[in-house]
Amino acid sequence: MREVGVVGVGQSTFGKAPQRTAVELGQEAVVAALKDAGLSPSDIQVAYASRMYDCWVTAQCILKEVGVRGIEMVNVENACAGGATAFRGVWKEIADDHYDVGIAIGVESMTTSPIAHRLIPPTMDDLDGQLGLTMPGIFAILARRQMEQYGTTVEDFAQISVKNHHHGCLNPFAQYRKEFTVEEILNSRMICDPITLLQCCPNTDGAAAAILCSTDVARRYTTKPIRVIGSALLSGDYGYLMQDITVSPLGSKTAKMAYEMAGVGPEDIDVVELHDAFANEEMLRYEELGLCQPGEGTRLIRERATWVGGRIPVNPSGGLLALGHPLSASGVRNIAEIVLHLRGQAGERQTPNAKVGLAHMLGGSVAGLEAGACGIHILAR
Amino acid sequence: MREVGVVGVGQSTFGKAPQRTAVELGQEAVVAALKDAGLSPSDIQVAYASRMYDCWVTAQCILKEVGVRGIEMVNVENACAGGATAFRGVWKEIADDHYDVGIAIGVESMTTSPIAHRLIPPTMDDLDGQLGLTMPGIFAILARRQMEQYGTTVEDFAQISVKNHHHGCLNPFAQYRKEFTVEEILNSRMICDPITLLQCCPNTDGAAAAILCSTDVARRYTTKPIRVIGSALLSGDYGYLMQDITVSPLGSKTAKMAYEMAGVGPEDIDVVELHDAFANEEMLRYEELGLCQPGEGTRLIRERATWVGGRIPVNPSGGLLALGHPLSASGVRNIAEIVLHLRGQAGERQTPNAKVGLAHMLGGSVAGLEAGACGIHILAR
Repeated sequence: MREVGVVGVGQSTFGKAPQRTAVELGQEAVVAALKDAGLSPSDIQVAYASRMYDCWVTAQCILKEVGVRGIEMVNVENACAGGATAFRGVWKEIADDHYDVGIAIGVESMTTSPIAHRLIPPTMDDLDGQLGLTMPGIFAILARRQMEQYGTTVEDFAQISVKNHHHGCLNPFAQYRKEFTVEEILNSRMICDPITLLQCCPNTDGAAAAILCSTDVARRYTTKPIRVIGSALLSGDYGYLMQDITVSPLGSKTAKMAYEMAGVGPEDIDVVELHDAFANEEMLRYEELGLCQPGEGTRLIRERATWVGGRIPVNPSGGLLALGHPLSASGVRNIAEIVLHLRGQAGERQTPNAKVGLAHMLGGSVAGLEAGACGIHILAR
Repeated sequence: MREVGVVGVGQSTFGKAPQRTAVELGQEAVVAALKDAGLSPSDIQVAYASRMYDCWVTAQCILKEVGVRGIEMVNVENACAGGATAFRGVWKEIADDHYDVGIAIGVESMTTSPIAHRLIPPTMDDLDGQLGLTMPGIFAILARRQMEQYGTTVEDFAQISVKNHHHGCLNPFAQYRKEFTVEEILNSRMICDPITLLQCCPNTDGAAAAILCSTDVARRYTTKPIRVIGSALLSGDYGYLMQDITVSPLGSKTAKMAYEMAGVGPEDIDVVELHDAFANEEMLRYEELGLCQPGEGTRLIRERATWVGGRIPVNPSGGLLALGHPLSASGVRNIAEIVLHLRGQAGERQTPNAKVGLAHMLGGSVAGLEAGACGIHILAR
């Protein structure tokens, strides 16, 4: 397999934009990524787009007016891991020598989607969901267990939300750019005890794009592409097999594959973007990614290790909690964030001297399974 | 790249089944394909599923109860070419040596989809569609032009529907198993002049699955896997660039790529399955695939060359017109049909001594583009 690098990233502003179509949001991200890469539309040889709701040949619709037509285009869906799946698709196309240059796009217009005013998951196949086991319910059960098992407090969970909202203030693309205190987080509306409104990611419209290139070819365009050194994508096994609901083997298995491919370990990672749909979720992911020992996530947040400026910044973008979460877009967007840090272009939220970063996405609640899909990418400068 | 073969195919019955979920339909197809291949669920290392409506980690939902979990799963969408895209995805995974055995699934529950009682395309981005340029409208314009330019008659178009409905009578999985005369076709309800109801494909619920395997590994399971010798997938360019609306470069460009990769030409093809969403469309595809010279599609149907038993049978399955058209399923289903002919297992509709077959799918009406995607696979025994 050939070495592949990221040579351009771009995103739309994230927020509520019901007056804009998903195609318009996607075009904003693609144009930004092309500009960032210094490439023209005719350089793009393959495209993967991810979108979950109202998907109808999304890549083709987005790219036609940008000037990318007549090439191989694939549209993918993997719930919240859709963007990571699109990125991995383009990475494989180039690593396997089918093409030299490709674009991965993630986009979602949540405010115009069929679930705009409903809870996820709404599919008729999902009996658990229909009976009320929606996302906040699942994570509230996990939060209760974390409190029981590890002595985590609601203040600890709230602190994660405080952190990510602080990070959002440092990101001009974020949906929410406002500081909150632990008290404000805990006093916001109760959604599903102990999870309050400000511990839930918002509904967001937005798009992101990343341009990948074989590093040999990339040197024509840039002196230093950001290299993709690890990529892994797995679906979950039966949740019934989990010994402990706070320890999902899916995340650690996927992370292990990505680390092995990259030839690095958690101790080598300088900056992390991960799936924080709910504040307490972030803590679970610390452990699965090996950023701390099992059960020590609480210590990590109490030590403020995962703040911008801390030992291992997590979600410097603001994460899903503050930057926002347009489902299929988030998996491309969080890779773009890592790229900015590795280039030293992350502005006020820059991780000093970041050499290796990790982007994690997880998604697809399916009755009986740990999760639908987990996608992890490790990048290095 | 490694040689890849198809070692198992399966499908659900096609028809209207609003009481069944897409997941149930998919499971029926997967179980049939596993049985056909003589493989167990634990042999499957990678899965691609295609579904257009209500997609939510479809592969994961279908496969979890079948016993396939914890592997890489990707869900794709490319309108009617979605099934071909899923098949191509698995083919690449194996050809590029990421995995040895994988499954491609296509599924659609049209009768429970959000467009069940509406016309395609319904997306808010598609102004042409919103203004009335729906699928029957597009194909009626094409039919008028075919009549003007090539002297094709409404009887010629009807004859294609007569043929495919005859073929449907030979296929136990078909939605419609009833003979129709030219008069009956022409006297059915007018949908968009000159296209009558019986020249339109129906709304269909159904699923299909194909198991692919590197041919080296396949020899463990079967003495003769059906080899995938050509695969191509392209999106359309601007329709405005077409010199003649009856000649879309997309189909011929994709066919050329597939033929070149396979090292065969149209004259080597023994049996064809192609996208016949409307009767007149089939004739356009004859020409794009090189089964006849441009403008000679009419002659081909008048000579009855494309009937089962003719020189080059087209849509022996009954095609979309009679077998039915569950959008994302059709692209896997029509490859399965070719596999049956190459194995000599197509029963009453068998193409005698078929050595090479071609499966074509086209889809995704996008304002301004020829089409969203065209996927072509060439298989050989």
